[in-house]
Amino acid sequence: MPTTDKITDAVAEYARRLKAGDPARIAALYAEDATVEDPAGSAVRKGREAIAAFYAELDGLALTAELLTVRASGDTAAFHLRVVTTTDEFVSSIEPIDVMTFDEQGRITSMRAIWSPADVVHRRRSDQ
Amino acid sequence: MPTTDKITDAVAEYARRLKAGDPARIAALYAEDATVEDPAGSAVRKGREAIAAFYAELDGLALTAELLTVRASGDTAAFHLRVVTTTDEFVSSIEPIDVMTFDEQGRITSMRAIWSPADVVHRRRSDQ
Repeated sequence: MPTTDKITDAVAEYARRLKAGDPARIAALYAEDATVEDPAGSAVRKGREAIAAFYAELDGLALTAELLTVRASGDTAAFHLRVVTTTDEFVSSIEPIDVMTFDEQGRITSMRAIWSPADVVHRRRSDQ
Repeated sequence: MPTTDKITDAVAEYARRLKAGDPARIAALYAEDATVEDPAGSAVRKGREAIAAFYAELDGLALTAELLTVRASGDTAAFHLRVVTTTDEFVSSIEPIDVMTFDEQGRITSMRAIWSPADVVHRRRSDQ
């Protein structure tokens, strides 16, 4: 079982790399055969290559990621995350609760993001 | 797959029954062969009887339960919950993130509570 500190460090690093936006570096936090289900209930992506392709969808978006609440116990972390993306026209904010499991080395073995379209807020930039 | 509304209704009812404190009524929200792991990483309790016995540990405690954030997608809910228990001497507050899965009928099929001892705050009542 990874330590709680190892898990919370990995979550903080995940948020940093999500913000930095390099898909390969985000995928490198995952174990080789890890799974991503975002949102929960959608198709499961398996393996680092598929996971990097998933994060590549964020490429080119101006994005911030802020951890609101992090909890860890056993091999699991659950955290409330605020992701804000900005395009020419819109500022979109989504605050999922993500659930991750970890291996002994602190690599992510699974991620499920719990959110629905009702949890996304879009604002036109001209409204700011 | 249960609807998102059915899941969020079930979570709200769980918080209400947790506050009301009747172990059998809380356990009745679970499917017959459901599992509870609280905190995640501890022994898994399986089946309604074992689950009722787990909640019976709260018997006699003055307890409030407040939902802070609820997310649902697919068959899963994740929610940030504040539980405050009061004894003659202490007020204890714990704010886990709980992760639940549900069956088609909206019964809980699994619950994992993500929290560690560091997330519990005890205050002497005389300090209030």
